[in-house]
Amino acid sequence: MAQIYNFSAGPAVLPASVIRQVQSELVSYKNSGMSIMEISHRSSLYTDMEAEAEKNLRKLMSIPDEYDVLFLQGGGTLQFAMVPFNLARKNKRAGFIDTGHWAQRAIEEARLVPEIKADIVASASSTNYTTLPDVPNLEKEYDYVHLTLNNTIEGTMYRELPNALNGQILVGDMSSNIMAQRYNVGDFGLIYAGAQKNIGPAGMTVVIVKHELLDDRPELPAMLSYVKQAAKHSALNTPPVFAIYVAGLVFKWLLDQGGVDEMQKRNEKKAEFLYNYLDSSRLFSAPVKKDARSITNIPFVTGNEELDQRFIVAAQENGLVNLKGHRSVGGMRASLYNAFPFEGVQKLVEFMEKFEQSVGGNR
Amino acid sequence: MAQIYNFSAGPAVLPASVIRQVQSELVSYKNSGMSIMEISHRSSLYTDMEAEAEKNLRKLMSIPDEYDVLFLQGGGTLQFAMVPFNLARKNKRAGFIDTGHWAQRAIEEARLVPEIKADIVASASSTNYTTLPDVPNLEKEYDYVHLTLNNTIEGTMYRELPNALNGQILVGDMSSNIMAQRYNVGDFGLIYAGAQKNIGPAGMTVVIVKHELLDDRPELPAMLSYVKQAAKHSALNTPPVFAIYVAGLVFKWLLDQGGVDEMQKRNEKKAEFLYNYLDSSRLFSAPVKKDARSITNIPFVTGNEELDQRFIVAAQENGLVNLKGHRSVGGMRASLYNAFPFEGVQKLVEFMEKFEQSVGGNR
Repeated sequence: MAQIYNFSAGPAVLPASVIRQVQSELVSYKNSGMSIMEISHRSSLYTDMEAEAEKNLRKLMSIPDEYDVLFLQGGGTLQFAMVPFNLARKNKRAGFIDTGHWAQRAIEEARLVPEIKADIVASASSTNYTTLPDVPNLEKEYDYVHLTLNNTIEGTMYRELPNALNGQILVGDMSSNIMAQRYNVGDFGLIYAGAQKNIGPAGMTVVIVKHELLDDRPELPAMLSYVKQAAKHSALNTPPVFAIYVAGLVFKWLLDQGGVDEMQKRNEKKAEFLYNYLDSSRLFSAPVKKDARSITNIPFVTGNEELDQRFIVAAQENGLVNLKGHRSVGGMRASLYNAFPFEGVQKLVEFMEKFEQSVGGNR
Repeated sequence: MAQIYNFSAGPAVLPASVIRQVQSELVSYKNSGMSIMEISHRSSLYTDMEAEAEKNLRKLMSIPDEYDVLFLQGGGTLQFAMVPFNLARKNKRAGFIDTGHWAQRAIEEARLVPEIKADIVASASSTNYTTLPDVPNLEKEYDYVHLTLNNTIEGTMYRELPNALNGQILVGDMSSNIMAQRYNVGDFGLIYAGAQKNIGPAGMTVVIVKHELLDDRPELPAMLSYVKQAAKHSALNTPPVFAIYVAGLVFKWLLDQGGVDEMQKRNEKKAEFLYNYLDSSRLFSAPVKKDARSITNIPFVTGNEELDQRFIVAAQENGLVNLKGHRSVGGMRASLYNAFPFEGVQKLVEFMEKFEQSVGGNR
């Protein structure tokens, strides 16, 4: 079977060495005679594994001690509801920066939580989300302000936090660039990320939350309550053991590779290589304005839907898979997460050059 | 490494052939060049796999067409809240049969859902949950009545549904005996089960719900809404792909073995073998009354905590692992789910006989 390169936005490519390790120890985890899928979550086999995963994540992201680290279920979409359930208590009002699809989903879900007001305090809708919005100084009292650090579909990314948000309790959705770009955890009240892009297999969500924000919460159903989950160290009920295990191996791999700063450097190199080609191509172009461009999710188009479709099919046949853009925007998208190798970007650009020549370079 | 037998109550033993298949195709699922952990949930690789898993589950449990089958996250504990959020709408009142720890957890969580009343309509507390309670004819109007079919901790199980519940909308927690004991799905409005006992790895929950019960629900956050999950065929957001995949392999294995009736027969044989020994032993005994005994979870004690502890340690040293009873009741517990082999029960009884001899048979 020929080598393939998987550009999926998530579930996404994992480090090959991690998959091989999972495979090699799948029948008997640490010589226990049991698969990792069969071990009790009350055994030290599990608690040691979980503790090491958390320790390594703390190291990778330099998470201060006053933050709890939770490994939950339900993906980013459950966080869209859990965050307002737990954090929008005093003023019952949260601010949202509208950077596109996933930010809007966060707003919709917050509005379904009883009594919560969700204000859009800034929006990039006027540029069709090809830029990041200017954020005004906020006057209303918000329990928190929600920011999507990387917009998986639109391909925009915050490299720096907006100055105007200084002093607000920030909630960051880092689902598509956690540990791919360095952020300062101390700037946030809460960070969440679905696992299936830069962390591990789908079915696990990382939540990093400042412990003081969890005090004095009202009674919520256990699975919706950060404070109850934190009190039981994410094992309030049976945790997603396998997903946490694989995530732990990915954390270890990231440390071995040189950590978040090294990953960011590699991601910038991969992204630059593709953007340079896109900016010079007469066929393909990147819709996102330069200062807003994501390093992990790079949408591009030919400007002709039929040609886009031909390109996606031809690329697939050449082992460059999952390049189709999100159904809401069309076109193509290359997701270049931490585990995606530089060679794959080179192969993609080579293939795009050939395709461009074959259609005569006309958009 | 010597063969071990894993008596864990969950996560629990999986069929050895399933684990070997996962291992063999882990690097490249169906020759895609991608691991099952890396495939997109919008690809046919995923949707075909999910559809086959659902088809086989429907076959195994004879699920009528008017029921939706959902593969969700969050375990039974999230269902404790989702069921009242979704089904306790008209009367805002549900009845609960108190059969022990997990039934009580379901009651506690229902009471945390705003405006919901949760009545205990029958309880086995007077026998310390070693029996199943008599259920009176219910006069109040309940939106549903909740029943824990198998009590993992106490070791009791309903073989038949209580007559008095006829005509009520029944919600069944089958977490620890789904597909281990035959029930008629048509008797229930909703059935739920965490995966990690008889289905697959932790991190997935099966919900089987009569479609008509989902009409006209108010707006709930998406991840808490059955109707929204059903509309998107459990892929409202990224589903727990790996857990669903392994569950699908287990469903296939169950069909190959002869289905639920065959599993029930084997489980009865395994359980009878252990109960027969327990009832004849001078050292060990089973606390549960005969007509209430579970075939999947069998608690037993020596009557002496220090001796229990010695037994657990000695068994562990002999490859009989995870026999410790739940921390809330102590003693021992043998969980004999579908994938647990008869030989393991024979080994356990042999070992118990030797242990009994070694301590002189005195309780």
